[in-house]
Amino acid sequence: MSLNITDLKVGVIGVGAIGKEHIKRVNYLTGAHVTAVFDVNNDQVRSWLTQENIEAEVFDNGVDLINSDMVDAIVVASWGPTHEEFVLAAIEAGKYVMCEKPLAVTEEGCRRIIDAEMACGKRLVQVGFMRRYDKSYRQLKSVLDQKIIGEPLTLNAWHHAPEAPGFSGDMAITDSFVHEADVLRWLLDEDYATAQVILPRKTQISSEPELQDPHIMILSTKSGVHISVQSFVFCQYGYDIQCQITGEKGVAALPDPATTVIRTNASLQQEIFVDWKDRFFDAFDVEFQEWIDGARAGQLTGPTSWDGYCVSVTIDACVKAKYSGGIEKIELPEKPEFYN
Amino acid sequence: MSLNITDLKVGVIGVGAIGKEHIKRVNYLTGAHVTAVFDVNNDQVRSWLTQENIEAEVFDNGVDLINSDMVDAIVVASWGPTHEEFVLAAIEAGKYVMCEKPLAVTEEGCRRIIDAEMACGKRLVQVGFMRRYDKSYRQLKSVLDQKIIGEPLTLNAWHHAPEAPGFSGDMAITDSFVHEADVLRWLLDEDYATAQVILPRKTQISSEPELQDPHIMILSTKSGVHISVQSFVFCQYGYDIQCQITGEKGVAALPDPATTVIRTNASLQQEIFVDWKDRFFDAFDVEFQEWIDGARAGQLTGPTSWDGYCVSVTIDACVKAKYSGGIEKIELPEKPEFYN
Amino acid sequence: MSLNITDLKVGVIGVGAIGKEHIKRVNYLTGAHVTAVFDVNNDQVRSWLTQENIEAEVFDNGVDLINSDMVDAIVVASWGPTHEEFVLAAIEAGKYVMCEKPLAVTEEGCRRIIDAEMACGKRLVQVGFMRRYDKSYRQLKSVLDQKIIGEPLTLNAWHHAPEAPGFSGDMAITDSFVHEADVLRWLLDEDYATAQVILPRKTQISSEPELQDPHIMILSTKSGVHISVQSFVFCQYGYDIQCQITGEKGVAALPDPATTVIRTNASLQQEIFVDWKDRFFDAFDVEFQEWIDGARAGQLTGPTSWDGYCVSVTIDACVKAKYSGGIEKIELPEKPEFYN
Amino acid sequence: MSLNITDLKVGVIGVGAIGKEHIKRVNYLTGAHVTAVFDVNNDQVRSWLTQENIEAEVFDNGVDLINSDMVDAIVVASWGPTHEEFVLAAIEAGKYVMCEKPLAVTEEGCRRIIDAEMACGKRLVQVGFMRRYDKSYRQLKSVLDQKIIGEPLTLNAWHHAPEAPGFSGDMAITDSFVHEADVLRWLLDEDYATAQVILPRKTQISSEPELQDPHIMILSTKSGVHISVQSFVFCQYGYDIQCQITGEKGVAALPDPATTVIRTNASLQQEIFVDWKDRFFDAFDVEFQEWIDGARAGQLTGPTSWDGYCVSVTIDACVKAKYSGGIEKIELPEKPEFYN
Repeated sequence: MSLNITDLKVGVIGVGAIGKEHIKRVNYLTGAHVTAVFDVNNDQVRSWLTQENIEAEVFDNGVDLINSDMVDAIVVASWGPTHEEFVLAAIEAGKYVMCEKPLAVTEEGCRRIIDAEMACGKRLVQVGFMRRYDKSYRQLKSVLDQKIIGEPLTLNAWHHAPEAPGFSGDMAITDSFVHEADVLRWLLDEDYATAQVILPRKTQISSEPELQDPHIMILSTKSGVHISVQSFVFCQYGYDIQCQITGEKGVAALPDPATTVIRTNASLQQEIFVDWKDRFFDAFDVEFQEWIDGARAGQLTGPTSWDGYCVSVTIDACVKAKYSGGIEKIELPEKPEFYN
Repeated sequence: MSLNITDLKVGVIGVGAIGKEHIKRVNYLTGAHVTAVFDVNNDQVRSWLTQENIEAEVFDNGVDLINSDMVDAIVVASWGPTHEEFVLAAIEAGKYVMCEKPLAVTEEGCRRIIDAEMACGKRLVQVGFMRRYDKSYRQLKSVLDQKIIGEPLTLNAWHHAPEAPGFSGDMAITDSFVHEADVLRWLLDEDYATAQVILPRKTQISSEPELQDPHIMILSTKSGVHISVQSFVFCQYGYDIQCQITGEKGVAALPDPATTVIRTNASLQQEIFVDWKDRFFDAFDVEFQEWIDGARAGQLTGPTSWDGYCVSVTIDACVKAKYSGGIEKIELPEKPEFYN
Repeated sequence: MSLNITDLKVGVIGVGAIGKEHIKRVNYLTGAHVTAVFDVNNDQVRSWLTQENIEAEVFDNGVDLINSDMVDAIVVASWGPTHEEFVLAAIEAGKYVMCEKPLAVTEEGCRRIIDAEMACGKRLVQVGFMRRYDKSYRQLKSVLDQKIIGEPLTLNAWHHAPEAPGFSGDMAITDSFVHEADVLRWLLDEDYATAQVILPRKTQISSEPELQDPHIMILSTKSGVHISVQSFVFCQYGYDIQCQITGEKGVAALPDPATTVIRTNASLQQEIFVDWKDRFFDAFDVEFQEWIDGARAGQLTGPTSWDGYCVSVTIDACVKAKYSGGIEKIELPEKPEFYN
Repeated sequence: MSLNITDLKVGVIGVGAIGKEHIKRVNYLTGAHVTAVFDVNNDQVRSWLTQENIEAEVFDNGVDLINSDMVDAIVVASWGPTHEEFVLAAIEAGKYVMCEKPLAVTEEGCRRIIDAEMACGKRLVQVGFMRRYDKSYRQLKSVLDQKIIGEPLTLNAWHHAPEAPGFSGDMAITDSFVHEADVLRWLLDEDYATAQVILPRKTQISSEPELQDPHIMILSTKSGVHISVQSFVFCQYGYDIQCQITGEKGVAALPDPATTVIRTNASLQQEIFVDWKDRFFDAFDVEFQEWIDGARAGQLTGPTSWDGYCVSVTIDACVKAKYSGGIEKIELPEKPEFYN
């Protein structure tokens, strides 16, 4: 509700496609509104704000925005390599920050954030892994936690996107698989031990002929759960996220989204989404509402900097495994008490 | 967003279970907040508002609330027989009103509302048929409108609820089937011509042994589409809403909700919801957001008083058919230009 | 196996499309072979036998075939109006007979067969209702019989065929719905009490523009189970047989056939059969094998002349209801002890 | 049909559980009957034949049976280590032989059979890989062959059995995975290049606590298709065979078997088979009928000794990989022209 003086005043850094969505999102959710923004292209931002009829102060500098009295909490949606600086500034200012993935582009960067947050003595950072907020992942986790299928033994997942124009190098790992790297740890509630990457026969249907596609990421967890994730970013047919877990007593899997069941032309059909937003739009709303509620209550509950760090180490191990062809260890220090 | 002076000030009449949900809903949605409430038991309301930390004026009288400057638009969620009075008062005050079903408890009451609204010259009334806002009904309507299955010929629907303690007499028609009476007209985009009601063998598993359950409502539309709706309010197994439409080239149907797919104990399983809120909660949010947006823009787009009137005539015909055992005509005057 | 002297020597009357299939079927099944055939066009039959390398005596007359020592049991697959004569002759000869539907084209014809069979004192006649032998109908009946869904209250069925060139008049009832008329009695294990026929809006996509299509047959059973069967013989999209039964504790339904699950072009798809043989071919094999086994063991277990008679009365009531527009009674004499 | 003098006279070696089924099967299929049997425990066999009313000569020696004039073709269903001897004897006798898997227990044994068969100049040997005859595998292969999903890139399969009492050592590979080792080559129509075996966290719910369960077999084909097969022989919940193939334009997968769809107790359910015979019984019938037809026509079409040899090499590579933990090469000589 609007007039409540406890409303969280949010500053948004980075006003690209995703930043714009987050500005609108914060404004239609409950308990917060956007008061300040910063982008490297502020002119474009000003005209967009006018066009959308959004009132917010435009800052010339991200750190000034962070330190302003107009801002209680920060959303970082800028270019990946800038995340670390802004998150560290938010910690120094003692303000809550929601940082889009990645937390930082290097393992060391993640460590610096962890160290700063622990030094400040309060959990201020949340990382934007929105799948944890998706209804069907949450229901799957609930099934696991209730032991309906017993202890998990193996997990098989797909990350299929119809196309990914502009993808190159290891982006299928760093930008796409990164979501599984987080959500599978959370589902299974344990850390990874090893990584292997298999490069199957390459698709010939792609706008990026140099790109290896698909990739198979094989992970094991500390208890020995075998994980296989198929990332296929030019799969053509749709945006299709699957996750099946085999346990001692059964199998639990994400459902296909509920779409109209059609019988026509000798075929029983249901639409498969093409746009990832159709699949995960609601998850972003829940993620931000819980972050706002947590910030207002002084207690964040979402993915932590430690989670961001673990994902970073995992991604690095996968990239290493891709080129070595072997099985790489994923070594993490003991989890600090602070993050329990 | 909160500080916007164009926020719609909403008064809520009737603060029972559904009224309470609507108060919270208006407050977390965008562009409106609840400023005033009235209930026959205002003491209880005051303590609930305190407990929920909601600031709103408590009026001693529904009509005073409607006429107050504190109120731009009204939600009527009180006992059915009181709806007509409050809707008429809102029209007289020239204010937008969202009226929970039924619009009025008699056909004549609905007519008086239509006449008043037409006399005032502006569409002010929306009726609370929330299924039109459900994602899967909207997708089904889109499939129909695109003629993917050709012209519709028959429609088969289920309205299954696990139990309905306290149901008696014709409530399966007036309180449960009423949702299909609206949503099927909207899906097919035409009016009904006849009604027949079949009373099958009665379930013996019910807390209301006097209640006939299930009912089969058979309707035909003006173009001859055959409709069969099975209302089964003590079906035991879950809250299960189905709708299948057979067209000249195919069949389109609501999907089952997407729930975790589990394989265990020699069985492939998916949860069926038991609570109707799990099925339609999101639809209420969309319904109210669109009503708020419409009221602020001066143009409502939802179900009109004419729709409420047509449903009322349909329900009356079904109740008559239930007792006559025959096929009853559903006769409507021509639709006023005003409602096109 | 071939050399067994107990092999049933089968004579087939009527060597059209279905008769030819039955000849091959009897020959590849166990415990029987075709020794004799008769058709109104014996020349065509002789060349077909040669072509298929099948050795069988060609009779000039159906009754002579029935009475020949070369024949232990008879299959009647000739034109419907000839069935009664051949079945009566088989009874008189004291030989087992499998008669394709209909048993006779009139209720009186069916009665004459029943009377003759009872007079002879032995069950010799089986009627060709093959759906009772379909795996998925049998599994559905098993679920009902185990009371997994409690007592049945309503039943909803589809009989959808892609097209039925040459259909006219009431053939959708007499030739298509006739299968449901038998199989639903068997599933529910009780007789029908009333029939009503609703004629929905007619499809415009049909090679038979005069034909009413679809039809809705509404039956009630003696205990009050409400049955609705949608017969749609030019449905275009496929051959699609559905049957859902709502009981006091749940719903049980035929599954869709298991066909490859394909994800392509933004669509999750499974093939729907177009040819009814793909759906029911196996059922014919089981039907004939059980008939052969029963004949050899001296104890038939399949649909009886009484079943054929009940279906005949039901079909007559449906045709009458189609033209009266009202609810017609289905009146049957008490079932003779002989058929229990 | 029985009296045909071209009936194939079949001798069966090994009359255990599977041998008994094959004897009945040959007798109820078309064009063959069992004339001779041999087992290490002939006394038991004689009483079983009497009990089942089957007439067949009982031989004291498998090789005598093979060479007897009473026998046109041989089924080998004895203990695995005896297969090679009987197959070689059948080749020497110039008679068709259906050999249950494995063709031989060593790669060298398979080679000796290939060499003998090529020396004799005629394809006489078929190996009992019945999955190729399963309706849903055949439909899947047809989808692949039509390029509906484009070129295959990855394949994911499950071989889940509820329990496997008595399994030890590498039987999950040699006795269970052996079916996938054949059927996946056939589906993809190419040979394997490498094998890796991953041993996930072990189930604690098993009657064989020493047994590693599940296993993950990872294969690559020569063109680079990535294959992952999960063998889980104590999965508890059912006998569940899955196979999903990701191609350049889509995904194709085996369907779940069609079983009654039940809604009860807040759950949408379909039975999962527990017994493998419910899943593959029909496939055995088709396999044997095609073998009989092929033998009578002088042209076998099923899995060859070369296929048996390739599977043997694959199984050996998997067992080696299981213990080495590495990626093992699967090296095959060039396929002889004889087997094309």
